[in-house]
Amino acid sequence: MGKSRIEAFSDGVLAIIITIMVLELRVPHDPTLDALGTLWPVITSYVLSFVYIGIYWNNHHHMFHAVRRVDGGVLWANLHLLFWLSLVPFVTAWMGENHFATIPTAAYGVILLMAGFAYRILQKALIHGEGNDSLLATAVGSDVKGRLSLLLYLTAIPSAFVNRWLAGAIYVSVALVWLVPDRRIERMVDER
Amino acid sequence: MGKSRIEAFSDGVLAIIITIMVLELRVPHDPTLDALGTLWPVITSYVLSFVYIGIYWNNHHHMFHAVRRVDGGVLWANLHLLFWLSLVPFVTAWMGENHFATIPTAAYGVILLMAGFAYRILQKALIHGEGNDSLLATAVGSDVKGRLSLLLYLTAIPSAFVNRWLAGAIYVSVALVWLVPDRRIERMVDER
Amino acid sequence: MGKSRIEAFSDGVLAIIITIMVLELRVPHDPTLDALGTLWPVITSYVLSFVYIGIYWNNHHHMFHAVRRVDGGVLWANLHLLFWLSLVPFVTAWMGENHFATIPTAAYGVILLMAGFAYRILQKALIHGEGNDSLLATAVGSDVKGRLSLLLYLTAIPSAFVNRWLAGAIYVSVALVWLVPDRRIERMVDER
Amino acid sequence: MGKSRIEAFSDGVLAIIITIMVLELRVPHDPTLDALGTLWPVITSYVLSFVYIGIYWNNHHHMFHAVRRVDGGVLWANLHLLFWLSLVPFVTAWMGENHFATIPTAAYGVILLMAGFAYRILQKALIHGEGNDSLLATAVGSDVKGRLSLLLYLTAIPSAFVNRWLAGAIYVSVALVWLVPDRRIERMVDER
Repeated sequence: MGKSRIEAFSDGVLAIIITIMVLELRVPHDPTLDALGTLWPVITSYVLSFVYIGIYWNNHHHMFHAVRRVDGGVLWANLHLLFWLSLVPFVTAWMGENHFATIPTAAYGVILLMAGFAYRILQKALIHGEGNDSLLATAVGSDVKGRLSLLLYLTAIPSAFVNRWLAGAIYVSVALVWLVPDRRIERMVDER
Repeated sequence: MGKSRIEAFSDGVLAIIITIMVLELRVPHDPTLDALGTLWPVITSYVLSFVYIGIYWNNHHHMFHAVRRVDGGVLWANLHLLFWLSLVPFVTAWMGENHFATIPTAAYGVILLMAGFAYRILQKALIHGEGNDSLLATAVGSDVKGRLSLLLYLTAIPSAFVNRWLAGAIYVSVALVWLVPDRRIERMVDER
Repeated sequence: MGKSRIEAFSDGVLAIIITIMVLELRVPHDPTLDALGTLWPVITSYVLSFVYIGIYWNNHHHMFHAVRRVDGGVLWANLHLLFWLSLVPFVTAWMGENHFATIPTAAYGVILLMAGFAYRILQKALIHGEGNDSLLATAVGSDVKGRLSLLLYLTAIPSAFVNRWLAGAIYVSVALVWLVPDRRIERMVDER
Repeated sequence: MGKSRIEAFSDGVLAIIITIMVLELRVPHDPTLDALGTLWPVITSYVLSFVYIGIYWNNHHHMFHAVRRVDGGVLWANLHLLFWLSLVPFVTAWMGENHFATIPTAAYGVILLMAGFAYRILQKALIHGEGNDSLLATAVGSDVKGRLSLLLYLTAIPSAFVNRWLAGAIYVSVALVWLVPDRRIERMVDER
């Protein structure tokens, strides 16, 4: 079974998720800089989530690039990932509108954690189909970055109850780790 | 006439349907677990509908995979299916916001029933174009699962008036029946 | 210049237009049939517009199917068509929420008229690129249906001021005329 | 790495941006021409932004048409452009609902300026990958239009504080400059 339609559907869902988040940036009534200024937590959380969805799209793109065929299990593993990502606009708005209060900030981490798990499940399902000596399996390797991210989310969630800015700093750090492009798959595709 | 553009349009509509449902998950005002807890019926109905739209996308994907060409009748049969599915976010929100009250829960079943009928009409239109000895016709066979689903929806609608949780349980059961992957089409494509 | 990306973008915009209209179907607060019943004008106008956007997608699909290449003028003619169609959700909701009152019903006709004009401009731009003896030019011919539709919209707009149901009946009639599939392009593609 | 999926994702995001702006065109409660008339600033800003997003899509389409492969830097440069464009619906609504008041009108220019910068960064990233003697590098040349646009946005932002209509006139002028099709890339693709 070809992979193009699963890519198209995922592109569609990710494009919608990344774009509808802006609908939560409610237009202020007053035409003043002060009115815009009160939106800073909503805008900050929007930027963070835009970067996260962008990272997911980027990694999804790279991962499927290294894959030749998909089966029914991959379709569901992919939908499972999209489910958790579809909740990102919800927690983004909740966290932003409540000025990074404890519970919404922890909830944001829970969704990131679940999405991170779902990504790893999808990755395993794809490697299962491709074989352990496949391009994808070699490129992913022991997936230090993926596992480290899950660990950091797990740390961020309780730390939101100690200091919410600590949790926020962890979310930003994980995003920065992923922003540095992971050239393994690209390099390996080029080599073959 | 090629099938790629009808697939792309359907992917787009299904991607939007599955994603805009999250807009009905209104962000709670308070940053508390209690505020999140009051959302459980809305979240539950969101999960159920996410799974249903996912199943439709999966089956749509598989069905068109086995098809070589489409005609004008198929275009309309496909739009007819998308019409009923486009109402899923509406009944999902109505059912969730009213804590699975009788009428919305029954209405949810009516939409699932109409979508199920529309799917069978689309299936027939595709088989009509492919021929009765085609891959698709053989793979679909007597479509026990499709017909059973319609029967279960027909049972769920009146049972919502007796006990709404009974109707809910039927909706969940039908989803579970479809979550188990249907490998017939995959296997047949592989064999040929 | 290839036509695949203009098709993909148009599919995206049309998929979003046809789907976000459902966001105007505001979920009723009460879980009763009466509450659902008060929505009938909104649902009726939703169905009508769903069919119209479906017709546009169908015709757009057929028209571009007969086209081999597009130029910059076609890109803008296409965006011009999408602009008018993007206003369909707005007039649909205005007409529905006001129970087909005179001004919104006439405004609905104005948008349909402008979209019809825009479609003819796009058609001319495509025929200009393909040549007068092209498949598309032959298939379109004198475009009786397209010109008749414009005439009917022009009739419907003033008749909304006499009797709004008359205007509504005209909109439904035009849709029915187009629902009957136009097999000219399909037949000609097959012949060649 | 192929360019088709980055095109598909960008088409998706741009299609959603151009379409969800219409959700800010709130349906008036009264079915009167007066009620429609009060919407003129919102409609005007919608038209302007629709044209701008259309121009970006057009230019994006042309630019990627001249490109053969993309790398990780291009993916992020593209997401950066989409980020600024995703804020267009927000500033469009803010400007429209406040009848082109000074601050929102200046903010509109800031977003256009940032999107213009982001477009130039993307252009440079693509030229970097293609080489300085590539089709794209030759077609873009010294990019007078791109640099002039940035200069005009830079002029418009302070002039909004002098006279907001002056800023508006500059935004319209830049759009008109780009509406005139830029046939350089098309011509060069044809020549090769």
